[in-house]
Amino acid sequence: MSWLTVPPGHYFSINNIPFGIISTPSNTTPRPAVAIGEYVLDLHAFATTSAKGFSQLPDFTQSDVFVSERTLNRFASLGRATHRLVRGYLQEVLSIDTPYPGLLRDNPEARKACLLNTTEDAVQMHLPMEIGDYTDFYAGRNHAFNVGVLFRGRENALQPNYEHLPVGYHGRASSVVVSGTQVRRPRGQVIRSGEGEKVPVFAESGKLDFELELAAFVGRGSELGSCVGVDEAGEYLFGVVVMNDWSARDIQAWEYVPLGPFTSKSFATSISPWVVLMDALEPLRTRPLERGTKVPLLPYLQESNSESVYDIPLTISVKTQSGTHKISQTSSSNLLFSFSQMIAHHTVTGCPLRTGDLLGTGTISGTNTQSMGSLLEMTANGTRKIPLGDSREFRGFLEDGDVVVLTGGCGKAGVGFGECVGEILPAGK
Amino acid sequence: MSWLTVPPGHYFSINNIPFGIISTPSNTTPRPAVAIGEYVLDLHAFATTSAKGFSQLPDFTQSDVFVSERTLNRFASLGRATHRLVRGYLQEVLSIDTPYPGLLRDNPEARKACLLNTTEDAVQMHLPMEIGDYTDFYAGRNHAFNVGVLFRGRENALQPNYEHLPVGYHGRASSVVVSGTQVRRPRGQVIRSGEGEKVPVFAESGKLDFELELAAFVGRGSELGSCVGVDEAGEYLFGVVVMNDWSARDIQAWEYVPLGPFTSKSFATSISPWVVLMDALEPLRTRPLERGTKVPLLPYLQESNSESVYDIPLTISVKTQSGTHKISQTSSSNLLFSFSQMIAHHTVTGCPLRTGDLLGTGTISGTNTQSMGSLLEMTANGTRKIPLGDSREFRGFLEDGDVVVLTGGCGKAGVGFGECVGEILPAGK
Repeated sequence: MSWLTVPPGHYFSINNIPFGIISTPSNTTPRPAVAIGEYVLDLHAFATTSAKGFSQLPDFTQSDVFVSERTLNRFASLGRATHRLVRGYLQEVLSIDTPYPGLLRDNPEARKACLLNTTEDAVQMHLPMEIGDYTDFYAGRNHAFNVGVLFRGRENALQPNYEHLPVGYHGRASSVVVSGTQVRRPRGQVIRSGEGEKVPVFAESGKLDFELELAAFVGRGSELGSCVGVDEAGEYLFGVVVMNDWSARDIQAWEYVPLGPFTSKSFATSISPWVVLMDALEPLRTRPLERGTKVPLLPYLQESNSESVYDIPLTISVKTQSGTHKISQTSSSNLLFSFSQMIAHHTVTGCPLRTGDLLGTGTISGTNTQSMGSLLEMTANGTRKIPLGDSREFRGFLEDGDVVVLTGGCGKAGVGFGECVGEILPAGK
Repeated sequence: MSWLTVPPGHYFSINNIPFGIISTPSNTTPRPAVAIGEYVLDLHAFATTSAKGFSQLPDFTQSDVFVSERTLNRFASLGRATHRLVRGYLQEVLSIDTPYPGLLRDNPEARKACLLNTTEDAVQMHLPMEIGDYTDFYAGRNHAFNVGVLFRGRENALQPNYEHLPVGYHGRASSVVVSGTQVRRPRGQVIRSGEGEKVPVFAESGKLDFELELAAFVGRGSELGSCVGVDEAGEYLFGVVVMNDWSARDIQAWEYVPLGPFTSKSFATSISPWVVLMDALEPLRTRPLERGTKVPLLPYLQESNSESVYDIPLTISVKTQSGTHKISQTSSSNLLFSFSQMIAHHTVTGCPLRTGDLLGTGTISGTNTQSMGSLLEMTANGTRKIPLGDSREFRGFLEDGDVVVLTGGCGKAGVGFGECVGEILPAGK
């Protein structure tokens, strides 16, 4: 329990303490902060003002990572032990029976200097990290299977490599944006007729889609030529966000052979603004999906902890003029590989990781229409439109003005991500 | 002609003036410089010491971009007009009939402070730019055709989209290294037998290969949601290097379906250290390869300047214990799309470019074994070993200890890239 009022079931309870980058109308410089309920603790102010917030944590000598920094990169680079130390300390500071009542709880001046209310103070969120490389995996086995059935039939749905390694590809870091950023419908090359020589036309995408994912930020980096062991990989992770990897399916279908998706995904990828630290997710650990093959994983991917993924409820809603319609509910346990396995595989040939690298899980889907993570799957590539609740509205793919809201979190645990939101703007001229 | 002695045919003549980042044993801080012949002009020293090197260029008010900067990013971000101004001024300063003799030519103290000799002063080269995103295209039509014939036969060698857009994919920025960096043979998942269910083994790559490419650095960035027109795209370019996109073909063959190459290329990508500015390449412009289809390019890819690529001789040599063996000679004109077309396509859906982004052409090959850009092509995937000169040595793929040397340049024009070198180290334990 915190001495601040936090509604029951709130994802930003004292069990969470997610980190982000904020600004306010009265101080427009982006700066680090943590969230608790509807409040925000400004860590720049906490570290520097008369509060001297970190004075009771002598083991943490690097509190300048929160001062005059516009991203969380420097804090993230300090590693898991420091993240644990700082998060634990902030939990103590915010706890109802805090051992440091004079720091904030009983110190009106310090509270005034450091505490903000997200609504009253019009807190604006920024991209939490400077992203070096963004890698998107394809570890949602149900998603890979659903898409495989659509394009290759049930027998060949999963490719031969699928269960032996976390399939992934390099994404575009420059187009990762923070939740709330509007997404303009892209234009590009699409194929309109299926007969004879394929002739592309230049058109607005008619198959604009979302993809529900989780994504982890890398904390500590690794060296060129060194492989990170799967059981040490957790030490390289900083925290997790929920992600929407927007996709233009018609552009993708034409461009992706043989090197993978390119302009069909690099127009925008949205992430939730608050980074939930790895330690906050520990209580939600569970087992990943079962592999179908009897061939064991190669040793470099064999993880000691069998509870290697997280059981976090995830939802997808679409807001239209008729209201907000929840169209999918699933769990992040629908993965075949863990973040640790992704890191072990990513570095197996010696690729260096850098602080701020972003690792997406790939689309997370259940096995039925109400638990899938993309419209591509839900509507069988637009051929079977889905209803939006009782609104008499239907969707094959997204329409201009649609607002897609992804959420993820466990109210009982008081741990979650907040929202990842994006509105579709009409294509430019 | 320069007042400095530059051997005839040297790629770093006064017509070139490439930019890079240097350090020396006596000053280990990386700093910007230009090369001329075997000399290097330290731009940090030139801008700051008593030389006051930019005092005769009053239109250039940002000479601090060369001061206390460890990359060329700030200079690159200033745009083509400024690159042209500064390069032209440095050509005047270094010219035999310089209008500013007192700056360097007749000023022994300033020469001592600013001029280095690459050998005598043990000049070390660093990565010239901080790379945001690295994109690798596939615009070498002969290469795409040669590889297509190997895997799909002559009739289906080129995919249906190939001549309609510059096919490309996102590469890994963190593993781009400067020429001279040793490359450790990667280990990973490979398939050893072709029968029944494919079962991967964990092994050293037995098919380690090079890829000969050019790559351009982005100067000015573009905004999310905005498309760069193909005829303006040149204004977004900074300069060009020669690149070796090292590839582990056996790891690639297993992992790349359906999302493209991943760990098989992210262990290292080497670039030559000196960035040749776009203006220096202007005299080498030529027409690209002819498209085979009669369907015209979509308007957003139609470039006004028909001489859209560069005719730069390129060579590949392999150094072994028996000597240095030139195994390929080709030209960078073997491309179907230009850098401007790559930028127009890259941004067509709204993907933002950032200063320091790297755009590779893809492997550049001619049509016969002596002009191909990869061993994959030269040896038909290792099945027809090629001789290394008269040495009685043969290669299917690279062996430990091999040193691959890529060069590119036109001696007559006095413009080229210098070397892109990498030695293969044995796999780790």
